[in-house]
Amino acid sequence: MAPKKIALFVEDNYNDLEFWYPYYRMKEEGYQVSIIGTGNREKFTSKQGLVAQINLSSSQVNTAEFDAVIIPGGYAPDKMRIDQDMLRIVREMNGAGKVVASICHAGWVLVSAGVLKGKQATACIMIKDDLVNAGAAYLDQEVVVDGNIITSRVPDDLPAFCREILKNLK
Amino acid sequence: MAPKKIALFVEDNYNDLEFWYPYYRMKEEGYQVSIIGTGNREKFTSKQGLVAQINLSSSQVNTAEFDAVIIPGGYAPDKMRIDQDMLRIVREMNGAGKVVASICHAGWVLVSAGVLKGKQATACIMIKDDLVNAGAAYLDQEVVVDGNIITSRVPDDLPAFCREILKNLK
Amino acid sequence: MAPKKIALFVEDNYNDLEFWYPYYRMKEEGYQVSIIGTGNREKFTSKQGLVAQINLSSSQVNTAEFDAVIIPGGYAPDKMRIDQDMLRIVREMNGAGKVVASICHAGWVLVSAGVLKGKQATACIMIKDDLVNAGAAYLDQEVVVDGNIITSRVPDDLPAFCREILKNLK
Amino acid sequence: MAPKKIALFVEDNYNDLEFWYPYYRMKEEGYQVSIIGTGNREKFTSKQGLVAQINLSSSQVNTAEFDAVIIPGGYAPDKMRIDQDMLRIVREMNGAGKVVASICHAGWVLVSAGVLKGKQATACIMIKDDLVNAGAAYLDQEVVVDGNIITSRVPDDLPAFCREILKNLK
Amino acid sequence: MAPKKIALFVEDNYNDLEFWYPYYRMKEEGYQVSIIGTGNREKFTSKQGLVAQINLSSSQVNTAEFDAVIIPGGYAPDKMRIDQDMLRIVREMNGAGKVVASICHAGWVLVSAGVLKGKQATACIMIKDDLVNAGAAYLDQEVVVDGNIITSRVPDDLPAFCREILKNLK
Amino acid sequence: MAPKKIALFVEDNYNDLEFWYPYYRMKEEGYQVSIIGTGNREKFTSKQGLVAQINLSSSQVNTAEFDAVIIPGGYAPDKMRIDQDMLRIVREMNGAGKVVASICHAGWVLVSAGVLKGKQATACIMIKDDLVNAGAAYLDQEVVVDGNIITSRVPDDLPAFCREILKNLK
Repeated sequence: MAPKKIALFVEDNYNDLEFWYPYYRMKEEGYQVSIIGTGNREKFTSKQGLVAQINLSSSQVNTAEFDAVIIPGGYAPDKMRIDQDMLRIVREMNGAGKVVASICHAGWVLVSAGVLKGKQATACIMIKDDLVNAGAAYLDQEVVVDGNIITSRVPDDLPAFCREILKNLK
Repeated sequence: MAPKKIALFVEDNYNDLEFWYPYYRMKEEGYQVSIIGTGNREKFTSKQGLVAQINLSSSQVNTAEFDAVIIPGGYAPDKMRIDQDMLRIVREMNGAGKVVASICHAGWVLVSAGVLKGKQATACIMIKDDLVNAGAAYLDQEVVVDGNIITSRVPDDLPAFCREILKNLK
Repeated sequence: MAPKKIALFVEDNYNDLEFWYPYYRMKEEGYQVSIIGTGNREKFTSKQGLVAQINLSSSQVNTAEFDAVIIPGGYAPDKMRIDQDMLRIVREMNGAGKVVASICHAGWVLVSAGVLKGKQATACIMIKDDLVNAGAAYLDQEVVVDGNIITSRVPDDLPAFCREILKNLK
Repeated sequence: MAPKKIALFVEDNYNDLEFWYPYYRMKEEGYQVSIIGTGNREKFTSKQGLVAQINLSSSQVNTAEFDAVIIPGGYAPDKMRIDQDMLRIVREMNGAGKVVASICHAGWVLVSAGVLKGKQATACIMIKDDLVNAGAAYLDQEVVVDGNIITSRVPDDLPAFCREILKNLK
Repeated sequence: MAPKKIALFVEDNYNDLEFWYPYYRMKEEGYQVSIIGTGNREKFTSKQGLVAQINLSSSQVNTAEFDAVIIPGGYAPDKMRIDQDMLRIVREMNGAGKVVASICHAGWVLVSAGVLKGKQATACIMIKDDLVNAGAAYLDQEVVVDGNIITSRVPDDLPAFCREILKNLK
Repeated sequence: MAPKKIALFVEDNYNDLEFWYPYYRMKEEGYQVSIIGTGNREKFTSKQGLVAQINLSSSQVNTAEFDAVIIPGGYAPDKMRIDQDMLRIVREMNGAGKVVASICHAGWVLVSAGVLKGKQATACIMIKDDLVNAGAAYLDQEVVVDGNIITSRVPDDLPAFCREILKNLK
């Protein structure tokens, strides 16, 4: 059987650890990870300066081929949320009941995709109001699992965040 | 008669021009400008590295003494919006019908202060969804004036933004 | 009637606020602002890292089309003063009695253009000796107006600097 | 039963991912991680600028309390290898047959601790000669396990590196 | 006989090579080098970020104890030239016929000290007008020696600059 | 007679002073200096950000044309030591009894070239173990001369380092 395939979003100013920890963690588990960028660019730079090379642009993604989408925080989500293909990916994955996981400011992408109405979720405290205004019940805990939607708050939640993603994928 | 008094918010990662243009512009017109920071810090640094020294912490502000509040963008508003005193200032100024002006990402502060319900407003496109979810009608124009609430999108809107603030103050 | 046209000089290491404040301020007043660079480059970077895109290279400037030239400080003037076309522009504007305005280290450009002999002027204190050696009477005040030559010392003088430029242009 | 306890070395210029991936990965597994620095400093900064706060200085470490030591790369090992307490920790852990794990340039610490004689090991290619001169047989593979000594080459080896550490700990 | 003693000026933004090459070169020859700073600060940072620790503040310098003063360029001279004690040192050394050596923008310090009237000198081309206005004859060559005054233009002139300083000191 | 010719190695993260001091010092003495880089790149950047332009790539070097090779420190040697042509140059120069000089971490290049067996040498203290494991007797002094091999520890040893190189070349 082919290994499960994970879509990992990227844009400039992504949080270094919220991107690379899930990247290597999913690989350690034997999954395939595709790095998905916006527009036509090949490379994106983290808040600290680490460069990530994409595998696919968001417009090239066929969600039928993926089992989960993971969205890191930092200020990258400020740009991801106006990329129509990233929003499409989140909506299609969510519609198919596949894992949609966001951490920290990445909650904005779920807000703009419109998938939080009536859901329990978390994110960093700064964007709590945006989640609530989008129809979510905001919980202040290291990871919130509401069906296929898995959300965390900050880098220190990464162990809990990945544990729940992996539990859901198995 | 005493000169009019302007509260200008600041936090780290403020947009250089969205802070300093209104700062000098209000001074050129003879107004007094008080730089208002969060917490107990004395200095805040812009995205580009310019340091601004505060006059008051937000908890010290008596809004009865001010005629307008101006909120610059950048990623500073991501922190301003969880400062309860900054939200209090915005609500009190708005309740008193005084000028409440935000540009770019500063729209978040108006969202978290809860003053946009049923109002017309603008901001940079990235946060349009947050404004709409907060009850605003989003307009894509250089400046939107809805009563005492004056909003703009980006640095290039600064001339229109300040023109409308000054018109309202006179 | 066509709006008045302002030439605004730029080079690397320009002072962020001394460039952008007059830029937006003249626009707010309805004037056209042309950013003028040296040599064949398209973009110049401020001390803090802001990029300015030029409208014209100095060699392309026909001074008959301009009503004022404004020269920002920082260490940009260290390079502007060896650009023969920038010096030509200053001399031609001055010869025609049009506004020639410099702030901070931009006084060097007036020194190298040779337009300060017998004039009253100011600049940041570091270059006072260069102004005096060039024949100027140095005054330590926020703005000095000697006919068409308008000079200021530091960023905090920007409101007075622009007020006098605008007064002269009307 | 108390959770297993891991010593994670740190110094300035540590490789961001080689430090933080094992840090969160061991935590995900339920282990306790103590960050161990040199000298009397409280904080150390990665190559990219991430700050790590220590739990203990190397001179305070009683190796009887630890089950493994993990040493990240970057240029931090250039300083770790002249810290006599870090060398003592490596030697004592190795003498007790506990996990001693290094990745990338961290191989230098094993060289200076003198624990590689007659062992198979790997590291980034730049320091291959130093390992060989210290008596190791250098293998070019993602992870080399020789008894309690576990070594890897580069950040992309992190999944294999942690997999073997965890296998050994259980 | 005591070794000759050299005063080497420093301020923030000093040119790295124009400071450190003469520093080590004079030491190689057996001379004592004292690093002289302005005001009350202990440390100054170069354009590239190298920190120099002073031996004396300019106000503490007794010129009777020195055989030469060397002034490096960069933008440090923009600040040195308003330090009255650095100007005093240059005037006293010059009055005593001792070596006064400047390279690149350090010519400004000689301008403000008023020691160039009727002298031949060089400097980087940007400040040629300031030297000429101060009464110097500007020559475009790697090193100009006019009695005790030794001047050069740019870092690549350092070998010629130090050769002439050393020739004069012997 | 043609001037003596010096090969000066370079790679990214070279120590600014350990590269540029010997560069200008050898020129001051009338020698020709060729900057030698690795691979196909034209430019290399120092730890502090100074750019050096190469004259030759290491693969193009015919050692019969050179009288000495000087290797600066910083972390550049971490890359130089895996460049087979740089190692070839060191071995050929050493085999011909010509000056081979390294300072600070550049001792690694001599380790990887295999020229230290049975020799006295120095380097910065961090890499002492690597020198000893490579067969050298490590001495803690500002410069160590063992036949044609001249080694120093840190930037402050530059005067002694260059004095001995020049003595040997004459």
